[in-house]
Amino acid sequence: MTRTRFHQGLDDLKQKLLAMGGMAEQAVERAVLAFQNRDLSVCELVLRDETQINAAEREVDEMAVDLLAMQQPMAVDLRFIVACIKINADLERVGDQAVNIVERVMDMVNNPRADLNIDIPRMASLAINMVRDALNAFLQGNVELARSVLERDDLVDNMNHEIFEATSFAMTHNVETQRDAIDTLIVARNLERVADHATNIAEDVIFWVRGADVRHHAKT
Amino acid sequence: MTRTRFHQGLDDLKQKLLAMGGMAEQAVERAVLAFQNRDLSVCELVLRDETQINAAEREVDEMAVDLLAMQQPMAVDLRFIVACIKINADLERVGDQAVNIVERVMDMVNNPRADLNIDIPRMASLAINMVRDALNAFLQGNVELARSVLERDDLVDNMNHEIFEATSFAMTHNVETQRDAIDTLIVARNLERVADHATNIAEDVIFWVRGADVRHHAKT
Repeated sequence: MTRTRFHQGLDDLKQKLLAMGGMAEQAVERAVLAFQNRDLSVCELVLRDETQINAAEREVDEMAVDLLAMQQPMAVDLRFIVACIKINADLERVGDQAVNIVERVMDMVNNPRADLNIDIPRMASLAINMVRDALNAFLQGNVELARSVLERDDLVDNMNHEIFEATSFAMTHNVETQRDAIDTLIVARNLERVADHATNIAEDVIFWVRGADVRHHAKT
Repeated sequence: MTRTRFHQGLDDLKQKLLAMGGMAEQAVERAVLAFQNRDLSVCELVLRDETQINAAEREVDEMAVDLLAMQQPMAVDLRFIVACIKINADLERVGDQAVNIVERVMDMVNNPRADLNIDIPRMASLAINMVRDALNAFLQGNVELARSVLERDDLVDNMNHEIFEATSFAMTHNVETQRDAIDTLIVARNLERVADHATNIAEDVIFWVRGADVRHHAKT
């Protein structure tokens, strides 16, 4: 077991986590597309994605455990591997949110559509970009980028709050499309949760990079 | 560094994770108490709990990383430590759900109360028991208990579904208490999410215990 093969393993883990991130992002994008078009066939795709994402989560965990078992990792590598395990779990939960969204869409196709002046796709793209940037921040060890993710969380929270108010208002004024408004309110909360997962990842980045720094300095 | 001190470390990690579980359970219990009595002072307690839970999450992670760094753990210990890291993250998210609930309660105190024929405390106690049993299943390596947690998830999902229908119905029939009904609907979803975290933990138990078994058998 050489250090080089260990580092090859770290690279593979990184690539696998990136792929996992791509799958989770795609699931949310598809869920929002399904929402926009009330499209059941896209819902099916998202439900299929989930099985793959769950399998990928297990694979990342196994790769991480194998790397930990391979040799005594240095502190910085150890923290990287543990962070991968934590981030992996958050990415899987992002996929779960996509499933939650399509479950609402599957309810929505049966009900008249509410006329709501809200922008779910914009909220979704904000949340997805947060996930993407949090993952990039991790891979680059970029604390600044991680911080920018944390700052954007308020934006998404505010949109969620606005949508809560707009849908509540719509429910009071149009009983017929109330159910559609409730479903939309829940979709917004699911997207807010996607942003929360991005925030978790960004917090992990700051924590792990700093921890690595602290240990590094303690040694010199 | 002796094996004995390492095992002392594993015991400490286990105790710390149990304490973390207790804090998360208590936060949800308090949130539901705040919901039942529309009690802002209990809301404050839950918000304070969250700071402690977040700190405890970091401590568990650090303990786990220190153990991994201490010596080359055996496969079974390695998987135990990694499982602690994953379960720790789920317990922290359980605490987040308690915060989400009290945020709704803080909205609810301003609005007239809806007359809903639903049992949030029962749903809460089901969800909290799932978390407790999932954690016990982990500590005992008890796959049967983990499976019983997975089976109970449908019960909570069904309660969530019933509450969705009951609150939607109430909104249509009483516009004045609509906001209270929406908030209640979200509280139910938060509790459903607590049960989801219990399910995550139970799935981890099955995965890690089995993985440990597989590796054990591979060696003999």
